[in-house]
Amino acid sequence: MSITLKQAEKIIEVAKQKSIDLDTKMNIAIVDSGANLLAFVRMDGAWIGSTDIALKKAKTARLFDMNTGNIGALSQPGGTLYNIEHSNNGLITFPGGVPIKNQEGDVVGAIGVSGSTVENDHAVAEAGANAYSTAPVLQ
Amino acid sequence: MSITLKQAEKIIEVAKQKSIDLDTKMNIAIVDSGANLLAFVRMDGAWIGSTDIALKKAKTARLFDMNTGNIGALSQPGGTLYNIEHSNNGLITFPGGVPIKNQEGDVVGAIGVSGSTVENDHAVAEAGANAYSTAPVLQ
Amino acid sequence: MSITLKQAEKIIEVAKQKSIDLDTKMNIAIVDSGANLLAFVRMDGAWIGSTDIALKKAKTARLFDMNTGNIGALSQPGGTLYNIEHSNNGLITFPGGVPIKNQEGDVVGAIGVSGSTVENDHAVAEAGANAYSTAPVLQ
Amino acid sequence: MSITLKQAEKIIEVAKQKSIDLDTKMNIAIVDSGANLLAFVRMDGAWIGSTDIALKKAKTARLFDMNTGNIGALSQPGGTLYNIEHSNNGLITFPGGVPIKNQEGDVVGAIGVSGSTVENDHAVAEAGANAYSTAPVLQ
Repeated sequence: MSITLKQAEKIIEVAKQKSIDLDTKMNIAIVDSGANLLAFVRMDGAWIGSTDIALKKAKTARLFDMNTGNIGALSQPGGTLYNIEHSNNGLITFPGGVPIKNQEGDVVGAIGVSGSTVENDHAVAEAGANAYSTAPVLQ
Repeated sequence: MSITLKQAEKIIEVAKQKSIDLDTKMNIAIVDSGANLLAFVRMDGAWIGSTDIALKKAKTARLFDMNTGNIGALSQPGGTLYNIEHSNNGLITFPGGVPIKNQEGDVVGAIGVSGSTVENDHAVAEAGANAYSTAPVLQ
Repeated sequence: MSITLKQAEKIIEVAKQKSIDLDTKMNIAIVDSGANLLAFVRMDGAWIGSTDIALKKAKTARLFDMNTGNIGALSQPGGTLYNIEHSNNGLITFPGGVPIKNQEGDVVGAIGVSGSTVENDHAVAEAGANAYSTAPVLQ
Repeated sequence: MSITLKQAEKIIEVAKQKSIDLDTKMNIAIVDSGANLLAFVRMDGAWIGSTDIALKKAKTARLFDMNTGNIGALSQPGGTLYNIEHSNNGLITFPGGVPIKNQEGDVVGAIGVSGSTVENDHAVAEAGANAYSTAPVLQ
């Protein structure tokens, strides 16, 4: 089971609004349950270099079904997953990638956000993912 | 000068509608004047493999400021641009990528479409690009 | 919806038997509905270089939901999809990749086979895919 | 001298059982004595992103004929093999990759496992490798 484009677009709308609320300019990527790209937007003035980071955060969050920052906590020097970023044609393991789960808790996609501090990136990603998890944006 | 995200989203809307009119399911990518990804959607049921092709068509169209099919006509065996597809981390040179020009004729971005025959891909890309060129979708 | 590992293993069994019947030695790869690798075997004595080809054939068949040979017929010089192989980190477009469909016709994965002539590769892939399509190997 | 496919499949069976005993879902890869992929399975529900990691762990273990974790101990900042992960199109150097040795101690392949903690990954890989080393799974 995977989210639809319509759902992805609504998730992006929520994330964009959260980004505006935080006075930031974000790249926002959504992948489906197969970790394949479904939708993407770069807000005007957002860092161009954050496009690839947002794409990789979304991919990473779905590949491991967890927030990207959780992986980064383990991939530091001396950590149990040191240099895991070399796998899967490149991962991004700092915060900003969040799995999208349905109300049953199944992972149906993921969102990746990049363009500000990792705290803001994560807040925007979480806002998007929560919009779906708590009240599936289906209509 | 480059198109904005709002304009890109409107171009995508026009392209999606054209795709529906043709009874097809498309991947649609928009790059800005720097050939960097600005917005993307994959319509439900569209080929997953066409995502990368749509991205590369949009990039290719802006990198050379011409329709991708025009490059493909020159990249055949014996052609003057034989195997140009090896450059720029991969080009796609069959139809479906179209530069987006403003009313003065300046290239301000490009659209890449993939998911059906190359004729349909091109028709959808052209519909999107023309929506901007003939009546900038600004409002 | 995607095939399970147990189903993939049964499909591989059927494909291995077909390969033995044809007196060939094959690489056999199965991807799930997200085009991600699910199972793989290289029969003893099979070409090592065919491993990557089998993997790419399975991926290609799912990315475009068609037999790989159908794409190759269009990607020749002068064809409408010339050099499509440059997309998606490398495609293989000669025969030997076949989508796996359930009895409702939905694509739930794909099989890629490489190690002999393309006719044999395709025959083995088709035998595996048909084993599922005509009588889902679920038990 | 290298393990056969039949042996690889039996090693995978042992590893799968160990994975079930530990209540985990694993990606399990076996490479031959040439460090080339011989067999692979992804258990249902295992992380998609662990596929590439399992493949790289198996490759890494055979490329250097040692447990991957041993390399990771030396590839840390300040270590003698700092960032060795950049070689060979990407290595994984945390635990989960184990060489497969015959009763004479010759390396005849390797197993890579990914899907849980590195302790569990290693335990499953070791169970598979030991099944061969202590009692070659030939029948």
